[in-house]
Amino acid sequence: MKNKSEHPIITVVGCGMMGSAITWPAAYNGCKIRFVGSPLDGEIIAHARATGEHLTLKRPIPAGTEYYTVDQLEEALEGADLSICGVSSFGLDWYLDYVIPRLPDGVPVLSISKGMIHLGEGKMISYPEKMEEVAAACGKKNIDFCAVGGPCTSYELADLDPSCVTFCGRKIELLREIRDLFEAPYYHVSLSTDVRGVECAVALKNAYALGVSLAIGMSYKREGREFEHYNSQAALFGQAVREMRILLNLCGGHPDNIELGAGDLYVTVFGGRTRKIGTLLGTGMSFKDAMEALKGVTLESIAIAGRTVEAAKSLESLGVIKADDLPLLYHIGRLLDNETGIDVPWKKFEKEIY
Amino acid sequence: MKNKSEHPIITVVGCGMMGSAITWPAAYNGCKIRFVGSPLDGEIIAHARATGEHLTLKRPIPAGTEYYTVDQLEEALEGADLSICGVSSFGLDWYLDYVIPRLPDGVPVLSISKGMIHLGEGKMISYPEKMEEVAAACGKKNIDFCAVGGPCTSYELADLDPSCVTFCGRKIELLREIRDLFEAPYYHVSLSTDVRGVECAVALKNAYALGVSLAIGMSYKREGREFEHYNSQAALFGQAVREMRILLNLCGGHPDNIELGAGDLYVTVFGGRTRKIGTLLGTGMSFKDAMEALKGVTLESIAIAGRTVEAAKSLESLGVIKADDLPLLYHIGRLLDNETGIDVPWKKFEKEIY
Repeated sequence: MKNKSEHPIITVVGCGMMGSAITWPAAYNGCKIRFVGSPLDGEIIAHARATGEHLTLKRPIPAGTEYYTVDQLEEALEGADLSICGVSSFGLDWYLDYVIPRLPDGVPVLSISKGMIHLGEGKMISYPEKMEEVAAACGKKNIDFCAVGGPCTSYELADLDPSCVTFCGRKIELLREIRDLFEAPYYHVSLSTDVRGVECAVALKNAYALGVSLAIGMSYKREGREFEHYNSQAALFGQAVREMRILLNLCGGHPDNIELGAGDLYVTVFGGRTRKIGTLLGTGMSFKDAMEALKGVTLESIAIAGRTVEAAKSLESLGVIKADDLPLLYHIGRLLDNETGIDVPWKKFEKEIY
Repeated sequence: MKNKSEHPIITVVGCGMMGSAITWPAAYNGCKIRFVGSPLDGEIIAHARATGEHLTLKRPIPAGTEYYTVDQLEEALEGADLSICGVSSFGLDWYLDYVIPRLPDGVPVLSISKGMIHLGEGKMISYPEKMEEVAAACGKKNIDFCAVGGPCTSYELADLDPSCVTFCGRKIELLREIRDLFEAPYYHVSLSTDVRGVECAVALKNAYALGVSLAIGMSYKREGREFEHYNSQAALFGQAVREMRILLNLCGGHPDNIELGAGDLYVTVFGGRTRKIGTLLGTGMSFKDAMEALKGVTLESIAIAGRTVEAAKSLESLGVIKADDLPLLYHIGRLLDNETGIDVPWKKFEKEIY
């Protein structure tokens, strides 16, 4: 990073829960934090200005944080040592169209938005790769796009629960500099230059956490009360790990990334919204009814699952995989398309290993 | 299997929770089940005879099950198509010394006892391999020892929660025949001829489930109440998967077995006794005090963790691995040796992947 001062300036664009929480350890380390609300974050910024509290995280924001609205984006980016892309998957298009052309060249970006984009014919690329493309098309050739993976929910990070994450990007030296800004006694950062692998592993966990949660709903349904069985959850968890390893390989990621993926899957099964939709589907509710029941909740996992199913089907049509290679993902796909109610293809999970 | 009748006879030696529960699906399929109590199972057999209920599973035993005491072992094995080794790790020596010499030659064994034995110098073999050796030494060269791996707790199996397990053994044809006895709408069986890999994966999960549970205790301690955080659990889960992959490789097992190991780790974190000891250690209690608090509880995970640490240290002394390759396992080892209280080596979990 150029011009790194004693108190580096970090500008977050998109101040949802994770975009905000990740600044806690940086503030702890003495960084100066600037929040820029996306067009969807107006209330969060107004509430923060008035109370010093984060509206959706429901926790006090570290003292010294400065607040900007979207029309003040350029001002907020002025002099920044690092910017953070803090939007969710649903804000990605806005970030690509509106923010990237306004980013100062030469200032690296750390993205908390995680995911893969299906380019057709089964080819998937990661968000940082996409950002890089868009920036290059704007003539900004000196922005390094890095990203955060690994099991970390925002509210627990804000509560200082010990977390282990991975920063990925093309340049290990830069990643080390960025790590120095965030590394804290409760925030542990591994590094990886395998951007595709890290992003693929952590994106997939969204779809599969929904898959594991199906067993929770099945158990509730059978017991007639909120009682969990774990054999069936574990069976789906094992199958999820199996299919994630297959997809990771298809994306060209390093096999070690399954360690991230498994940890991330674990935390997401306990993570709120994805668990809720999976549980409702597991009780036998249709996807349509489940979405109705969870009205107003943004479900990134649904978007990611849909995109992954679409990519898998492309690969199937190209003969690269067979539908039976990914029976859990395909079942999730059929659930989300309202083609079926819960009917886990247990028999298809059986295999023979020689 | 020779002489397989329409209602094959399965004799279980050792009628603890899992040895018994695995007969539920076989009874469902029309097999005739014989329970033989080990010297530790006297009360279980007496209670079953008197009430038809399993004393420790606390569930009714399928009708038609016959009960034998240990002095009736030969009678119970007479005409059996398959026998099950139903003892835990703690009963293994008794099984090797007393039962194996009395097994009818030519009748295969399916073992629910899972684990690895450290032969010194870091070399580990699986229980079925050890049983094979002992049987050969008794002149019984035609007993095939197969084993069960995969995420499955006994009480949930007895409750018919959908479960996916793996039977492993040297002969795929025999495994298919055994699968036919057990496969049920709620009990799904994969097969593997990679005995070492399956057994290694499922044995390791005992030690690592204790490791993941440490975060539960840490969270309770910090919050002053039974409140769980998941970032830290997921961080330990990811590190556990990492170390299990390393150990699986060192044992010579197929890398795919991590799928079993991860599922098994998941179910064991929710599995009762191992979670309890890990949680107590996580609150800062010494191992000595934690064992005192859980008096009378047999903890297979402790025995397995100790054995795995011992094997790892042998490998370290041979220069095959470094202590820092397995920081979580080594911390578990120090906790169990009363050398330290909880002090998770988070920094050592950090890595750089190129």
